[in-house]
Amino acid sequence: MPNIEDVIKEALRIVTPSQDEVKAINSIALEIMHILERKLRELGLEAEVTLQGSIAHGTWLPGDRDIDVFLVFPRNDKYINLVKSGELVRDLAAAISEIGISWVMNYAQHPYLTLTYNGFNIDVVPCIKMRPGEKPITAADRTPLHTLYLRGRLSGLEGDVRLLKLMMKRINVYGAEIKVQGFSGYLTELITLAYGGFVNTIKAASRWIPFKVKITLEVPSKVNFNAPLVVIDPVDPGRNAAAAVSLDSMATFIAASRRFLRKPSMTFFTNNTKPLSALQVRNIPTLIIYGEYPKDYVEDIVWGQLRRIASTIWNTVSSSGFKPIDIGLYTPQDNYIVVMLTVEEPELPEYEVHMGPLVWTDEAEAFIEKYINASNVVGPFIRDGRWFVIRPRGIRSIKEAVVKGLKAVRGGVVKDSLLKGQVILINDAAQVNELPVELRDIALAFMSKRPHWLT
Amino acid sequence: MPNIEDVIKEALRIVTPSQDEVKAINSIALEIMHILERKLRELGLEAEVTLQGSIAHGTWLPGDRDIDVFLVFPRNDKYINLVKSGELVRDLAAAISEIGISWVMNYAQHPYLTLTYNGFNIDVVPCIKMRPGEKPITAADRTPLHTLYLRGRLSGLEGDVRLLKLMMKRINVYGAEIKVQGFSGYLTELITLAYGGFVNTIKAASRWIPFKVKITLEVPSKVNFNAPLVVIDPVDPGRNAAAAVSLDSMATFIAASRRFLRKPSMTFFTNNTKPLSALQVRNIPTLIIYGEYPKDYVEDIVWGQLRRIASTIWNTVSSSGFKPIDIGLYTPQDNYIVVMLTVEEPELPEYEVHMGPLVWTDEAEAFIEKYINASNVVGPFIRDGRWFVIRPRGIRSIKEAVVKGLKAVRGGVVKDSLLKGQVILINDAAQVNELPVELRDIALAFMSKRPHWLT
Repeated sequence: MPNIEDVIKEALRIVTPSQDEVKAINSIALEIMHILERKLRELGLEAEVTLQGSIAHGTWLPGDRDIDVFLVFPRNDKYINLVKSGELVRDLAAAISEIGISWVMNYAQHPYLTLTYNGFNIDVVPCIKMRPGEKPITAADRTPLHTLYLRGRLSGLEGDVRLLKLMMKRINVYGAEIKVQGFSGYLTELITLAYGGFVNTIKAASRWIPFKVKITLEVPSKVNFNAPLVVIDPVDPGRNAAAAVSLDSMATFIAASRRFLRKPSMTFFTNNTKPLSALQVRNIPTLIIYGEYPKDYVEDIVWGQLRRIASTIWNTVSSSGFKPIDIGLYTPQDNYIVVMLTVEEPELPEYEVHMGPLVWTDEAEAFIEKYINASNVVGPFIRDGRWFVIRPRGIRSIKEAVVKGLKAVRGGVVKDSLLKGQVILINDAAQVNELPVELRDIALAFMSKRPHWLT
Repeated sequence: MPNIEDVIKEALRIVTPSQDEVKAINSIALEIMHILERKLRELGLEAEVTLQGSIAHGTWLPGDRDIDVFLVFPRNDKYINLVKSGELVRDLAAAISEIGISWVMNYAQHPYLTLTYNGFNIDVVPCIKMRPGEKPITAADRTPLHTLYLRGRLSGLEGDVRLLKLMMKRINVYGAEIKVQGFSGYLTELITLAYGGFVNTIKAASRWIPFKVKITLEVPSKVNFNAPLVVIDPVDPGRNAAAAVSLDSMATFIAASRRFLRKPSMTFFTNNTKPLSALQVRNIPTLIIYGEYPKDYVEDIVWGQLRRIASTIWNTVSSSGFKPIDIGLYTPQDNYIVVMLTVEEPELPEYEVHMGPLVWTDEAEAFIEKYINASNVVGPFIRDGRWFVIRPRGIRSIKEAVVKGLKAVRGGVVKDSLLKGQVILINDAAQVNELPVELRDIALAFMSKRPHWLT
């Protein structure tokens, strides 16, 4: 078994960008910042153009193509209005079009631009100046303070942050978006800082207990956060920087940390799992529902709906008498929306026992009257002080139960897309060939049910 | 629909013994009491020979063949010893043999005799004189005080008691023995007295709530009884005269009382249900286990074991993943011991989900090590902060589960008899023909699952 030091040494080679990459990225960032400064001046707008995020912190992963540039405007009504309304971004977009840089307008809490420039994606985010202790006007306002806070403090720990980010990426908990509900880049930086390095973070996480971890780097918070993980944002003690982390993501990170310490291995940093063949996968009944990805919707919307749908399906299936084992959500290449559900049994028996009221309650008589002349019902009979009947089961097949659950969801494009899509029950792993090609490996991986890092 | 008055008038005709029967029973009782008095004198034993029970109270049901005669001995060490040891009963038995009356020795808390005389069964029970307020030496000592208490008080209510007894008999809750766990004769008398008649008792019972009913006729009790029904014994406030009544029996009586008031009918007093045919019964999977009745064991022993077995089987079957619906126990004609179990599904799927420890606990590593290289296991995977695996199910058939439950019971003749017997799974009611003739109607009635009085 390799020891931790060897693994980390090798992993560091992977996560450290080359000198060329550093140079290239910095010069691209400077170029675009100059362009933006010029355009803002031409528009008569007063702003600091600043580099933020992992490039500014020196913690990006090699090959990353994302650069964050924030435009910090003075804190006054004019700019607050221009930023929030999107007017500012629209003017800037027009100005940038003139010089042939292509862009897309995106919407978080307020509009921002994503430029495509020399092969990089550059997020250009307007925000309002915020001084330490002040309340942010927009959610983006804290970002410059984050960079300010980390400057100097993080130096020397960049490699550690990169190791942590890569590991989290590999175990699927990196990113605060709804699709992942995991650890944001800033959060990985704060945690690395709090514990003083990658290995110490892993050691600490191996002892984490969800809902019992609260990390305070600076000022203690007066707020009581109810979240699996609490990391007080040092620039705003009223905010939990780990609010996005779900129990699942935290548990996965804890489990992976414990495993890494017991069995250090490059599996935690590489992604070289071979696709499974149907012969390697046991035949546990798995229902697969998929539809087209709704092209015009942003990921957070789609995944928000998808998660709500998953939870409704799980509840409907359980309350219909099935035993759901696991549910998986996928949007491969943003082409499909896919829900996969493993169950113990895809078909339930014809009859079910149905518990009625206690015999001494007012409901007893209505229960008897309801069932006493019902055809196809056995009973009523008394057990443990209650009336019971045995009656034909409403829903016997898992397909029906899932479709019922899906229909019970309130609106949404994802629901519509899935209802228009396909529902396939896989009893034998070889049936994955009935699925579109892009879904087969995902289905086999889901059916095999073991995290790739658990070796 | 017949009204209550008409039904009761007709039922009274059934429960009231003829003048001939009254005369016959009284003269038989007197005869045997004279014989006993003479024999006791000859043996030099000093005792009051007293008539007790339903004959003494005038509340027996027509056709009853049981007469209770209690021999009340002075409260001193000599007699206490003679009664408790059984020496007295043995001497009396020998003396009675001389005059050609046949007898059987029975054992409750101490031995007593059952004589067969002119077609009657006469229980001859020795006991020790107890004055009101005194502690009983043997469990039988209270009986003469019960008769004393009821004398006079019950007069005029004999018909009401008889109606109550007959109804309880028909709905299967009459008798304090373990087989029934229902209402003793004395208890029906106390309840009728407390509420002042049959209809008032039924009306009161229709509003009973188990564990909330406490009936006090005389002195309130200082004891806190925890039982579905509490009726303070007026001759011994430290005793709950309804201690034998199970929740099931009480619930059945409550339900039947409510139904009787809504739909008065002779069904509650007659037993003219036609046997069902297999065509009338729905095919709910039912497992039937039966063995030979162990001839030399008294009913309370057999039924005590049978009830314990039923509860172990129920628990084993549930924890193995089956959904038990109902369990029935029978000892038809004391020839067979029979357990019948209805389940939703007699065969479970090949794999089951198995919940492991929370990922952040010390047990997590052992769980992973146990399953990571196990063949035939899918996972481990993480859900809701826990490790899970999907593994082959240990027990898939209900037969196996029931036999496992049976084997888990600690010793006993009933267990041995059932293990030597047959286990038959009925998926189709027509299969009852595979059962011994005496079991077929019982099986069909059990599978039809509706009390005969619920019409």
